[in-house]
Amino acid sequence: MTFTKYPAKHHWSKVAKNLGLTEGLVYLKGDVLKERHDTDVELTFRQESNFYYLTGFAEHDAHVLFDLKTQKMTLLPYKLPEDHIVWMGMPPTEAELHTKYEADEIRFSTQLNAAIQESGASTLYVLREEDAPKDIKLTINAEVLKDAIVTARMYKSAYEIEAMRKINHISSNAHVALMKAAKKASSEVELDALFRYETARFGARAQAYEPIVGVGANAATLHYGRNSSSFNGNHDQLCLVDAGAEQGCYASDITRTFPLNGKYAGDAKTVYEIVLAMQKAVIAALKPGVQWEDMHRLAGKIAVEGLQKAGVLKAEYSIEELLSKHIDGYFFPHGLGHMIGLDVHDVGGYPKGVERIQAPGLQYLRMRRTLEAGFVVTVEPGVYFVEFILNGAKNDAEIAKYINWEVTERFAKVGGVRIEDCIVITETGIDNLTIAPKEIAEIEAIMA
Amino acid sequence: MTFTKYPAKHHWSKVAKNLGLTEGLVYLKGDVLKERHDTDVELTFRQESNFYYLTGFAEHDAHVLFDLKTQKMTLLPYKLPEDHIVWMGMPPTEAELHTKYEADEIRFSTQLNAAIQESGASTLYVLREEDAPKDIKLTINAEVLKDAIVTARMYKSAYEIEAMRKINHISSNAHVALMKAAKKASSEVELDALFRYETARFGARAQAYEPIVGVGANAATLHYGRNSSSFNGNHDQLCLVDAGAEQGCYASDITRTFPLNGKYAGDAKTVYEIVLAMQKAVIAALKPGVQWEDMHRLAGKIAVEGLQKAGVLKAEYSIEELLSKHIDGYFFPHGLGHMIGLDVHDVGGYPKGVERIQAPGLQYLRMRRTLEAGFVVTVEPGVYFVEFILNGAKNDAEIAKYINWEVTERFAKVGGVRIEDCIVITETGIDNLTIAPKEIAEIEAIMA
Repeated sequence: MTFTKYPAKHHWSKVAKNLGLTEGLVYLKGDVLKERHDTDVELTFRQESNFYYLTGFAEHDAHVLFDLKTQKMTLLPYKLPEDHIVWMGMPPTEAELHTKYEADEIRFSTQLNAAIQESGASTLYVLREEDAPKDIKLTINAEVLKDAIVTARMYKSAYEIEAMRKINHISSNAHVALMKAAKKASSEVELDALFRYETARFGARAQAYEPIVGVGANAATLHYGRNSSSFNGNHDQLCLVDAGAEQGCYASDITRTFPLNGKYAGDAKTVYEIVLAMQKAVIAALKPGVQWEDMHRLAGKIAVEGLQKAGVLKAEYSIEELLSKHIDGYFFPHGLGHMIGLDVHDVGGYPKGVERIQAPGLQYLRMRRTLEAGFVVTVEPGVYFVEFILNGAKNDAEIAKYINWEVTERFAKVGGVRIEDCIVITETGIDNLTIAPKEIAEIEAIMA
Repeated sequence: MTFTKYPAKHHWSKVAKNLGLTEGLVYLKGDVLKERHDTDVELTFRQESNFYYLTGFAEHDAHVLFDLKTQKMTLLPYKLPEDHIVWMGMPPTEAELHTKYEADEIRFSTQLNAAIQESGASTLYVLREEDAPKDIKLTINAEVLKDAIVTARMYKSAYEIEAMRKINHISSNAHVALMKAAKKASSEVELDALFRYETARFGARAQAYEPIVGVGANAATLHYGRNSSSFNGNHDQLCLVDAGAEQGCYASDITRTFPLNGKYAGDAKTVYEIVLAMQKAVIAALKPGVQWEDMHRLAGKIAVEGLQKAGVLKAEYSIEELLSKHIDGYFFPHGLGHMIGLDVHDVGGYPKGVERIQAPGLQYLRMRRTLEAGFVVTVEPGVYFVEFILNGAKNDAEIAKYINWEVTERFAKVGGVRIEDCIVITETGIDNLTIAPKEIAEIEAIMA
């Protein structure tokens, strides 16, 4: 499927339907270009996600209006002062903007207040009270728009899914490039730099989040982002890479864990197989109607079974007892995954009134929902040996008795394993956007 | 020269001397970690420059206090909540912080107000009124600190010069890597990505500013940052690369302009030779006591001489007349350079009361000062054929008569050339931190 324009008006129609209003003017303020303190050094600009969703317009200091009565969309790009043209180049003409964007009308940022007044609307709907322009006479309503947009953004449109497929493929290929480079690489930062390069050179100049590249015990720090360790010639360790680039404001989020020397072996292989089984079981079970926390629990059950078989958990306790004590949460201490879209942790994770589950691991779920077609989620189970968590478990007699500490200490050298894909929930099941290989044989073949 | 620690206390002593106060407490607030709207996606963190200057501490949500009476420096890193340890890893211990930083005392962010009250000081000096912590009983003074820090930062310490030399060398080598890759490259974004890679893999994960990679006419947009053009097989054009990475918060800023096919020829070679002569003349003239705007004028004079020799400017007018009409400003429309340090456009460009010169080119000077030892400046002359500017000149009979429009149209295909180095002003002359080659023979040899 190819699209010629970003489907802004389709997104507006979803938002308007969610609002359920037949008149009024909706206003969104694009993000402004910011500078560092006391200098004109500009910060890297990235459009505000809701604004992008309703415009497809990635430039700074723009505005958009949507008239709920006439369905007319007005895009108001920043009016470049004439003496900036020599620095920034000629701005696009009105005709060029019409060719590129779905807006019914193009005006300039300097005409915002006039455009609002001329609409004749009596109420201006905004996301945040402070967004409302000064000196306008309309009633400001900052209560209803956010929910209407969040609900629209949860269900990804065809354009959005293809955009996410594209960036997932670019990021997947970059993961493969890291696998190929790992044997000769000498540090985390080198692989981090290579990931950025292998995505940027295909036009994805921004990352959806700061890459995590951690070897050995570093992989057991869940949001490890220092990426500052040298391998010091030791390639006999796993490397966890959690990295995904962004393109056209759409995020990817992929984790792969591979041995620096190209061969899964010993305890590292055991842990990898457990996590791969967790992920495959969840992906096989995904479909509309499934409860997300049940998927987390399914992953936890497979973790406990695998860890017991590996000798980390004592054999004399039943799986039911281990799960009732949330032993899975000590080794799989984060949530199974989250919504992804314009933001890597996308909107809509918790419906109104739904609270977090207070239990190890489960409490960090970024989502509690019944899955529906059109959701895009990450599935990212992991098993880690986190010193800080295990010390806590050791000092808690009620928990300590389930764990074989001698075996656990041996496994601690593995650090941690996480495997993560981006998955579309479809009417009939799933569509996996991530194509980076994850089977042991596949990865070993790539690295051979 | 090697340094074991960032010289924060040396910098404090300079600031204290500039303040000329014998008591009171100085407080700086480190930058806070920010997230995107409506999601916990963190923005890339970069320490506030003044805070880094007085701590060498690059982590978020920290504070620093300096007691003007006792000269005691207290660093207060962010207190990581215990349940964040599994995500972020163990924070450094107090002993580790003492080993790494010059602070006399380490406390935590949660103890800020207590530390302020315990100092016994009656006045708290801050950069910005809004920085002052709530609920403290000291008099707040936001009037004097900024000037004291700016004046200190203008004169780079030995540590700072070595830090800037290091990042200039990393960035210089990356420029060489781009020259080597250019013949086989197919787009601007590919070279942009390569620059980021060649700096990031040596640990410089941030850029001091967004790289500019522009071929042909794109090079004539001074702050061109789209880097989105494909070469479409046409390597018979110049490529302007203005890019510099940042490391330990210190900036580099380097521009090189080279032919994609590895051979300077024709009008492109002519323009390159003019700009190189401009830059070399200025660098040869730099020393303490020289007025910066005179250096700009020197570059402008050489531009006019060169353009007249090339036939772009008519031969019948004297150099004096051309300069009196500011003809140089139509081809060299930006300032010669700026202070560089913790920010790429560093503090201290204009002394209080000194205004911009209202003339083409000169009006954009980011600096008007008498040079002093310890300043680090960029020297970045350029010659461009900017359609927007030349159209203006053509329509101004007073200016149009000096320009040979037929020749100018031919030269317009060159786009633009800029050459930029980072230069330390020393007691006796200069120290050029930039080592990327710029002689035609050198660049052609690298690209051969």
